[in-house]
Amino acid sequence: MNAEIISVGTELLLGETINTDAAAVAQLLSEFGINVYWQTVVGDNRARLEHAVQVARERSDIIITTGGLGPTCDDLTKEVVAGAFGRKLVLNREEEARLRGLYAERNSYMTENHLQQVYLPEGCTVLVNDWGTAPGCAFEADGCLVILLPGPPMECGPLLEHRVRPLLEARSDSLILSHSVKIFGIGEGTMEYRLRDLMNEMTNPTLAPYAKEGECLVRITAKAHTVQEAEDMIAPWIERVRQEVGEFAYGVDTENIQTCAMELLMQSGRTISVAESCTGGLVGDLMTNVPGASSVFRGGVIAYTDEMKRQLLGVDAAVLAEHGAVSRETAIQMAERARRLLDTDLALSVTGLAGPGDDGVHTVGTVFVALAAPEGTYVRRLYKDKWGRERIKHAAANHAFDMLRRYLTDLPVEYDEVC
Amino acid sequence: MNAEIISVGTELLLGETINTDAAAVAQLLSEFGINVYWQTVVGDNRARLEHAVQVARERSDIIITTGGLGPTCDDLTKEVVAGAFGRKLVLNREEEARLRGLYAERNSYMTENHLQQVYLPEGCTVLVNDWGTAPGCAFEADGCLVILLPGPPMECGPLLEHRVRPLLEARSDSLILSHSVKIFGIGEGTMEYRLRDLMNEMTNPTLAPYAKEGECLVRITAKAHTVQEAEDMIAPWIERVRQEVGEFAYGVDTENIQTCAMELLMQSGRTISVAESCTGGLVGDLMTNVPGASSVFRGGVIAYTDEMKRQLLGVDAAVLAEHGAVSRETAIQMAERARRLLDTDLALSVTGLAGPGDDGVHTVGTVFVALAAPEGTYVRRLYKDKWGRERIKHAAANHAFDMLRRYLTDLPVEYDEVC
Repeated sequence: MNAEIISVGTELLLGETINTDAAAVAQLLSEFGINVYWQTVVGDNRARLEHAVQVARERSDIIITTGGLGPTCDDLTKEVVAGAFGRKLVLNREEEARLRGLYAERNSYMTENHLQQVYLPEGCTVLVNDWGTAPGCAFEADGCLVILLPGPPMECGPLLEHRVRPLLEARSDSLILSHSVKIFGIGEGTMEYRLRDLMNEMTNPTLAPYAKEGECLVRITAKAHTVQEAEDMIAPWIERVRQEVGEFAYGVDTENIQTCAMELLMQSGRTISVAESCTGGLVGDLMTNVPGASSVFRGGVIAYTDEMKRQLLGVDAAVLAEHGAVSRETAIQMAERARRLLDTDLALSVTGLAGPGDDGVHTVGTVFVALAAPEGTYVRRLYKDKWGRERIKHAAANHAFDMLRRYLTDLPVEYDEVC
Repeated sequence: MNAEIISVGTELLLGETINTDAAAVAQLLSEFGINVYWQTVVGDNRARLEHAVQVARERSDIIITTGGLGPTCDDLTKEVVAGAFGRKLVLNREEEARLRGLYAERNSYMTENHLQQVYLPEGCTVLVNDWGTAPGCAFEADGCLVILLPGPPMECGPLLEHRVRPLLEARSDSLILSHSVKIFGIGEGTMEYRLRDLMNEMTNPTLAPYAKEGECLVRITAKAHTVQEAEDMIAPWIERVRQEVGEFAYGVDTENIQTCAMELLMQSGRTISVAESCTGGLVGDLMTNVPGASSVFRGGVIAYTDEMKRQLLGVDAAVLAEHGAVSRETAIQMAERARRLLDTDLALSVTGLAGPGDDGVHTVGTVFVALAAPEGTYVRRLYKDKWGRERIKHAAANHAFDMLRRYLTDLPVEYDEVC
């Protein structure tokens, strides 16, 4: 079964609004194993919308539109789509009563143009909108299921979940389930190179690589009749991918590397602190985005200047003088001093050059990350060329969490990365 | 001149990735008054991509694709699009050298599949990618300008700004220029209410309100033949909007409230430090995202637990016992102690409850932000109900920067906000 998404709205064509609705619709459809081969965006324009609908009905079994159901004169979707399938729009009495009720509740006067929202295609199923004023609707014509949804994401989202999902469940014989092996420390290209043969030979389940900022993942997707069947199809491949990628695989469906590291830390019952220079507090910020962080994270020191590294952390002036603030030695002392100062089991430190200017010694993008533990301190040197300040900071923070993750799972913690 | 955007990527069709590239491309095109009538999304599928290109060339003068330029076997865009216009892909020596150079710098082994990225359409203009590995490219065929861009937003964005913009400037007769009045402290609704009459009566320039996470802005857009002409049309309206919005307007085209505050701080020559509890380092992180921060930011203390507030900052145990960690009094002491400890002219502190759990005293979303200055300490109380951990942290940080901005421009600093 193929579906097509048509998003209607000039604000999308102008780039003023990002098309999150299309992603939400697509996610729901793919859950049911319904293929989406096309997404189209058109403006509030009768002729182009008509054209898009004509093209869509030729090639798709399901057409879902978002946007253009409102009360204004450029809300054309219902009229055009219903017209394309030879349906008249008729006033829906229940919806009219509901709409008038809403305005009465708000003690606000309903101008007549609002009634446009409750003229619906003859014989359609009304998708009652408890999250806004304009109802959605669905009807079948010429073997095509047509679903019209309002554009505002706060309305489109719940309507998808509470109105469209049941419609699809009633029609679907199979489902699609995915799990993602999350990977840190190797790039998408390298990963794909290792997995290419696997990926090419497979049809169901399928393997697909994705690159996310600073990380990548392999998604394993199975089409089956039951969840259990799909899980059984996926399980062996998760193991296989883990074997191929080895210690770079940090989790399955884990949100990100910091969530992975922090959850391991909470399980271990160990406490942690940070000493941050070039990241300026980012590592602590990311730690405290993980619910429950307060059970393991005590705090830290942001030592942005050499003076603060000496004064707040007690880094030796000699070390700073001899090796500089951006050095393995300084990173080690920062982590060890933080660990002692905040009396924690572990401590992470970051010192580096995020740019734009360099310090005359190191080039921009040179960062040292250290993890202090009871039995010793580990350091990683990174070099992120031409990445820009914020990306360098994020890469450094991700490596800090990867070191923590590796330490807590008895994997080698130290390696220098240049990328 | 009409343009069409074709976004390539199965992850878009599956809804795993939101199509931000299309919005970025559309925004740039509309700046040049180039109409975008169609956006299409197709998967990594040869036949459907070919079809989309054939349809697009019939109806559009400019085709811009995003995605599918990478090293993996499902990166088909170049091959398919070049093929559709009868162009061969040829190895580009400069780009090959650049690519090999990148890997050499990183001392990392370049697998052969990476070379796929530097096979480019014969006779194309290379859009050198200084933000990633895969270059973009542009060529003209049959009176159609074809531009191919990589999919990762961190690469697509800068390539649009630094490579595509100049291409379009060279072809455009009229131009569209926009300036944005950035606003913090009032919502989009209030702003729109204040400006509605203005907005409705205008055609060129136009006024449009936008809401961004925690801020909003009014964009003033003029269409003209020269930049000077456009600037002259816009200037009086910037003043007018500033009058309407008053002290809530913090800048024109300023990136965000922290950039605004940090630049004012640098101009003032004053130094600053932070004391963070619930934000966990976010304020320092945002400060150090602003280039030049090192000239004013010395560092700070992340005191996530009461013990650390006492031990690292010297907050009185009595104050914590009497008023609790989430209180006006604690926020004041945190800021004042940080100011003294780090010997800075100013200091910002944040203490609050970002959730998920509450402390039995305050409800989640209660945050106190303080600014310590030589002549006294200012406090702001926020209450962000049902916002979720990360949004509460960001709202708190934004208010910290707004207090700094107001202090440095002699505006009232203290007000409590509930929203």
